[in-house]
Amino acid sequence: MKTIYLDNGATTKICPAAEAAIKEANEKFFANPASIHHAGIEASKRLERARKTIANTLGASPEEIIFTSGGTESNNLAIKGLSFQNPSKKHIIASKIEHDCVLNSCKWLEERGYEITFLDVDKEGFVNLQQLQNAIRPDTLLVSIIHGNNEIGTLQNLQKIYEICKKKKAIFHTDACQSFTKAPLSAKMADMITINAHKMHGPKGIGALYIRKGIQLTPLAHGGGHQQGIRSGTQNVAAAAGFEAAIKEAQKQKKQIKNMQNLRDYFIKSALKIPNSTLNGAEGNSRLANNINISFAGVEGESVAALLDMEGICCSTGSACASKSLDPSHVIMAISNNSHERAHGSIRFTLSASNTKKEIDFTLRALAQAVKKLRKISPLKR
Amino acid sequence: MKTIYLDNGATTKICPAAEAAIKEANEKFFANPASIHHAGIEASKRLERARKTIANTLGASPEEIIFTSGGTESNNLAIKGLSFQNPSKKHIIASKIEHDCVLNSCKWLEERGYEITFLDVDKEGFVNLQQLQNAIRPDTLLVSIIHGNNEIGTLQNLQKIYEICKKKKAIFHTDACQSFTKAPLSAKMADMITINAHKMHGPKGIGALYIRKGIQLTPLAHGGGHQQGIRSGTQNVAAAAGFEAAIKEAQKQKKQIKNMQNLRDYFIKSALKIPNSTLNGAEGNSRLANNINISFAGVEGESVAALLDMEGICCSTGSACASKSLDPSHVIMAISNNSHERAHGSIRFTLSASNTKKEIDFTLRALAQAVKKLRKISPLKR
Repeated sequence: MKTIYLDNGATTKICPAAEAAIKEANEKFFANPASIHHAGIEASKRLERARKTIANTLGASPEEIIFTSGGTESNNLAIKGLSFQNPSKKHIIASKIEHDCVLNSCKWLEERGYEITFLDVDKEGFVNLQQLQNAIRPDTLLVSIIHGNNEIGTLQNLQKIYEICKKKKAIFHTDACQSFTKAPLSAKMADMITINAHKMHGPKGIGALYIRKGIQLTPLAHGGGHQQGIRSGTQNVAAAAGFEAAIKEAQKQKKQIKNMQNLRDYFIKSALKIPNSTLNGAEGNSRLANNINISFAGVEGESVAALLDMEGICCSTGSACASKSLDPSHVIMAISNNSHERAHGSIRFTLSASNTKKEIDFTLRALAQAVKKLRKISPLKR
Repeated sequence: MKTIYLDNGATTKICPAAEAAIKEANEKFFANPASIHHAGIEASKRLERARKTIANTLGASPEEIIFTSGGTESNNLAIKGLSFQNPSKKHIIASKIEHDCVLNSCKWLEERGYEITFLDVDKEGFVNLQQLQNAIRPDTLLVSIIHGNNEIGTLQNLQKIYEICKKKKAIFHTDACQSFTKAPLSAKMADMITINAHKMHGPKGIGALYIRKGIQLTPLAHGGGHQQGIRSGTQNVAAAAGFEAAIKEAQKQKKQIKNMQNLRDYFIKSALKIPNSTLNGAEGNSRLANNINISFAGVEGESVAALLDMEGICCSTGSACASKSLDPSHVIMAISNNSHERAHGSIRFTLSASNTKKEIDFTLRALAQAVKKLRKISPLKR
């Protein structure tokens, strides 16, 4: 049976260009970039080339880009690193639809004496800007709001959020793991930005944090003082080269974003023909180009996913990270006035540029059948 | 000019077996192992196979192995994770010759109210066991002592250290990044063990922490609850597969350790014929199989390394992580009664199994010439 992979929000397949860059780096630039001999210097140059590409992509300076092991580490570093560094300000604002790594970093700080305000979102998943403005206090250290939501795809208006934060003197961080290379993003939109490679066909195990010059963070990983002392640990030149190659590949294929959006909208329109179905998240340019998230009344998303899996279709019920948990999605709960039915009935498909209309048509047929079948046996008759 | 790479203590070249395992995983097991569809389950199985190999190598259970981004993260997690989890015990013991990531994690805790005892070492770099025994107090949370020292190669007697720690009820952690697969190491020798891949021909960006069952750590990376919640972040299946392959390769080539030791001893014996030279560290089986560290009176190690680099020879003056620092090596200072001359005059060569006698002979000639040349122009006449 052929696999139809529609779980690119969980992770993507590495692209050939990234694999080639890694192979080259493993061969030519394997030395430790902290070493002072010629091989170390060459490795360091290769690493800094990758850092510069990433910086340029965001309109930042290379010194403002710190490599990490991925999105989770970048988000932890932004939130805890800033908190450790500024112990006098103990109020943090996040939205109710953050990724678990932001939520749980905040909750950990909450246990340690911090006050966290979790902002509401509207039916489409947009943060309430008036509530944000009112929530920022003199002791507010940080506002952390996800750019493209990993479950429902809603893209926040970062410019407006950043404007409010600047006006009220709070530092603004955004988790852009899902949106990076899929939606407009730049260093003009936030003080700190989390990105990673494996959500956009780069290698796993590498991410970065953009940190505006002047913002000081306490490192989470102390050590040899790599990367200005902000993140110690032998730098992964090959992964950085792979990350860079995946970015260049994405930039070459900007047309594919439009194609993905079209395929996404075709998927959504077709799937919503299934009775009692609801789109979760925003539409058009305010939605991640590759995200489809729909709730089907009277069925469990997990059961739908299991039936689709039997047809070779890979999708998810929300965040992959939380997919083994039985709790309803906190994101769908936040946009649906805490509807357990909608949260349990949601299913997410996340496209890559290589998905075809044929795959989508096959999936749509299987989806309609699965929902029909499950509704027949559901105790909640519709 | 051909490169002679003798800086394998800084990092190694990835071996073909590890590259092949990564390639296969990128192709077949690219899905997120936290996903519940068939591709995710396959990826998860591949990941757990790698974890099991690593566990078996140490005589541990797979649940006791937590993957991290490398040695620095593992050491930070062991020290800070244990400290955050046990706030009532605020005394930590480490040796004076720890890697910077252990030293600086301890120093960070010191700034936050912890008391750190840094144990002396003798002339060969062995920790003073009597001093250790006397230093452990009822409020001692942790003893962290490096197994194979990264600069001078001295291998501590972990069994004896662990015995003392157990008797006096302190948790014992060891950083075994340099010794893993090069010296006997098992879960019977410590409560927590740091290992990583890139020091033994595996990929960069992956390490692990062995954590004895029953020891609780507060995560440094909060998030989706991966790896029993101890270390969140999408798991890097390909890198884990590469790590596993490198371990299997090392196990196949145990004879090479003996060859490395022989080449090491030949190097040391020959280099010590240069007048006014001193071996730093222990000898025989108490020394890392691939480590040579010698001080030449009246010369700067950095100048020697620079002259050798001009001949294509890659070596270092100590830890790669600290190689851009002008401070004298804290390790050589600790074994030499704080001799600045010996610390500044030290140079480290670290072999891999693929180095040849021909390369070593070339290096020895270049080394003798470099020392001679530098002594001629040195203000400290010998």
